[in-house]
Amino acid sequence: MQELKERIVKEGKVLPGSIIKVDGFLNHRVDCALMSRMADEFAGYFDISKVDLVLTAEASGIALAAVCAYKWGIPMVYAKKAKSDNIEGGLYQSEIYSYTYKKKVTQILSKEWMTEKNHVLIVDDFMANGEAVRGLCELVQQAGAELIGIGIAVEKGFQGGGDRLRAMGLNYKALAVIEKADETGIVFREED
Amino acid sequence: MQELKERIVKEGKVLPGSIIKVDGFLNHRVDCALMSRMADEFAGYFDISKVDLVLTAEASGIALAAVCAYKWGIPMVYAKKAKSDNIEGGLYQSEIYSYTYKKKVTQILSKEWMTEKNHVLIVDDFMANGEAVRGLCELVQQAGAELIGIGIAVEKGFQGGGDRLRAMGLNYKALAVIEKADETGIVFREED
Repeated sequence: MQELKERIVKEGKVLPGSIIKVDGFLNHRVDCALMSRMADEFAGYFDISKVDLVLTAEASGIALAAVCAYKWGIPMVYAKKAKSDNIEGGLYQSEIYSYTYKKKVTQILSKEWMTEKNHVLIVDDFMANGEAVRGLCELVQQAGAELIGIGIAVEKGFQGGGDRLRAMGLNYKALAVIEKADETGIVFREED
Repeated sequence: MQELKERIVKEGKVLPGSIIKVDGFLNHRVDCALMSRMADEFAGYFDISKVDLVLTAEASGIALAAVCAYKWGIPMVYAKKAKSDNIEGGLYQSEIYSYTYKKKVTQILSKEWMTEKNHVLIVDDFMANGEAVRGLCELVQQAGAELIGIGIAVEKGFQGGGDRLRAMGLNYKALAVIEKADETGIVFREED
């Protein structure tokens, strides 16, 4: 998505360790008009008429997922990070490793809000190692729901998460795939 | 807002301690079409033409704030919960007490994304003791921005947070004010 790539180049910051900050329009301050155009891009790639639930992860995926779900006329649900070891019943759970916080995190989702009847599109703002999305896929599987696809705004292609999902044959689309990011600049992968 | 009250009565659950669960449409699974109609209700109360930034708190306020900001054609920004004691510079900070987690939480917001030029509407899904919103007001004050108003979806009127804001003369609107919630049912406050 050309507009997204241009915003990343213009407004993104590359920090040491190839950390890419796009918190001016994606995941702190959020440009909701851009979110809407990203929803349109996803709708050009996935068959949204088959989707009845948008699934994302707390917290930074929520804004994009909410605008997508609003535009597509369907509900969204977000997996929460478990706050304690005492997790109540009635929940799907997945264990993921958070590279941001350098610890294991448990994602939880109430069984009431996703079932085997759902046809789910996972939407998230960022994909690096892909742990959050791996956990979301597990939740979909636990529910027995159908996974229609996975739509990501920005993929850090050099961290392998997206390629693992592609290799699994999943219906996966990232709107901008960053191949390299350092002090010399940002290089995007050619469109697949 | 009649529709919201009906959804609370029909789908909400009252747990011991007057805890009200509305996680089927507001803050776990999210009915984004309802969020849109709530945005319209806020737009009927506040002068949105004066607002250039929607401010909310991570995580459960984000979906409502994102749909509001999308419909009003302005950006939104969310205060994050600080994850460690080592908070980097360039941030506004407010200390609040979380009754949910029974501990102090630091809300942070990058100084880049709210300044003295902004005219801010605070939007949140829930108001109980009002600590989160009190912290958000502090962030607005630190920025030197203008606070246009505070819009809340569901207020637990019996916990006093909303009344404190009213007493301060702030431009405050909650779309449903719950006066009482126990095993006998849910009672709403009459419209002001």
